[in-house]
Amino acid sequence: MPSQDKDSYLVGLIGSGIGPSLSPALHEREGDRQGLRYLYRLLDIDTLGVRPEAVGDLLRTARDLGFDGLNITHPCKQHVIRHLDSLAPQAEALGAVNTVVFEEGGRAVGHNTDVTGFAASFARGLPDVPLERVVQLGAGGAGAAVAHATLTLGAEQITVVDALPERAAALADSLNRHFGDGRAAAATPDRLAELLARADGLGGLVHATPTGMAAHPGLPLPAGLLNPGLWIAEVVYRPLETELLRTARELGCATLDGGGMAVFQAVDAFRLFTGLEPDSAAMLADFAELAGAVGARK
Amino acid sequence: MPSQDKDSYLVGLIGSGIGPSLSPALHEREGDRQGLRYLYRLLDIDTLGVRPEAVGDLLRTARDLGFDGLNITHPCKQHVIRHLDSLAPQAEALGAVNTVVFEEGGRAVGHNTDVTGFAASFARGLPDVPLERVVQLGAGGAGAAVAHATLTLGAEQITVVDALPERAAALADSLNRHFGDGRAAAATPDRLAELLARADGLGGLVHATPTGMAAHPGLPLPAGLLNPGLWIAEVVYRPLETELLRTARELGCATLDGGGMAVFQAVDAFRLFTGLEPDSAAMLADFAELAGAVGARK
Repeated sequence: MPSQDKDSYLVGLIGSGIGPSLSPALHEREGDRQGLRYLYRLLDIDTLGVRPEAVGDLLRTARDLGFDGLNITHPCKQHVIRHLDSLAPQAEALGAVNTVVFEEGGRAVGHNTDVTGFAASFARGLPDVPLERVVQLGAGGAGAAVAHATLTLGAEQITVVDALPERAAALADSLNRHFGDGRAAAATPDRLAELLARADGLGGLVHATPTGMAAHPGLPLPAGLLNPGLWIAEVVYRPLETELLRTARELGCATLDGGGMAVFQAVDAFRLFTGLEPDSAAMLADFAELAGAVGARK
Repeated sequence: MPSQDKDSYLVGLIGSGIGPSLSPALHEREGDRQGLRYLYRLLDIDTLGVRPEAVGDLLRTARDLGFDGLNITHPCKQHVIRHLDSLAPQAEALGAVNTVVFEEGGRAVGHNTDVTGFAASFARGLPDVPLERVVQLGAGGAGAAVAHATLTLGAEQITVVDALPERAAALADSLNRHFGDGRAAAATPDRLAELLARADGLGGLVHATPTGMAAHPGLPLPAGLLNPGLWIAEVVYRPLETELLRTARELGCATLDGGGMAVFQAVDAFRLFTGLEPDSAAMLADFAELAGAVGARK
């Protein structure tokens, strides 16, 4: 392209209710640091009047109009799959895509940087914790991604706890298929006390339900079930310090907030979109500033 | 938009065979100077497999996907009109649109910066020349735009010369309707000698055919018809120094190359897209560099 002075990237996010997303700023600031012309647009299917099932049309149109790639979020992460030309292994295993890259010639390749992002955040934030027994609360979309990540990181055994027994069982089945029989089990919340007692000193709790978000305040389990021998990893990042994390820190637990996953999924997506290595430390600092972390954590 | 750090603009060009366009670099460099996040994409209907008549779909799609506006070029400048919500006066008078701005709420407004761009270039490059009798060679799309501009600038009488008599007559009729009876006339090329002789000392020649472009080299009229009492304004800008301009300069004519129109149509489009006043001197310098003008003019 002789008439273009620097590499330019047009990317975006397809999903519902995405107005407050921090992805545009996270990506664009990193693009600026790398000397790119980088523009990240929000394509809200509610605003556009597009049904989640019609995400394929939106995807093709965006490709035709010069987008280099797209992030995909709720409720399109599964619907998008049948419109792609190929899937990266972690996206195929999970059955969900949060990043689509348009390669030369227009091939659309699906990735899942929720999985790689949680793994990177965990490896960075809780590098030396035991992974013999992991209890995970929440078997929805985020739960599936972080369970895949936790087992990929080497967790020996994960028990998925969800108020919907079928959802927990389906996720455990899927994990056992991909990681080997016996790596995953399902349980209902009434067994949390027993499961956490057995994980004490050997593992920790991954929290992957919406409880603790600004719109869903509170604790996702009785505070009395926590103890200092458990690490606590949170998926919620708005606020960064949830009631669960505050309670766990006061008890002396090692903790991981949800910000790292939010940042590293963007780090990994940026790398996929551009082929360039992002400055993850700078992106973490940007996120802390954008999310008002300094104020929230005092 | 709390998550965006600076104003961002996504714009582009719809047309056929637009790969070599300098518009992306002209716009993006000015966006950089203004501290904007500014991305200009080429949407080539040949590559996309879109018929010129289907430009309306492309326009709506681009609006939905976050474009702030579009330039429009051959062969879509007329087709686009029926898909717009309103037209600026110069676009309405001309019946052609080269710039569409998506306003708040999605209204699509059509403008023609070929008209304003040629007028600005002429006023800057030939500020004090006589405008009593103007001869214009070429009555196609570019010809219609520059004839409107020339009459807007105050030309008393313009004669439109084209090898297609109907096309010349239709443009003259349209000009007379908009600017008043007697301002325009039509003629065939066999009358050029007589027309230019009558314009000597009172006006000049506007050249608006493709002759002189790299793919159509040569002179658009016999060199012997030129004389130093005529100014010569060129629409072709690739190369910047056409054979016509070189011949005219050697004769001592005042001349205007096609670069100014190319730049000022972009200046005017940038102002419409952003609401900000572009640095036209810097855009002229960029154009000279991008078009390799220094080398071409020695």
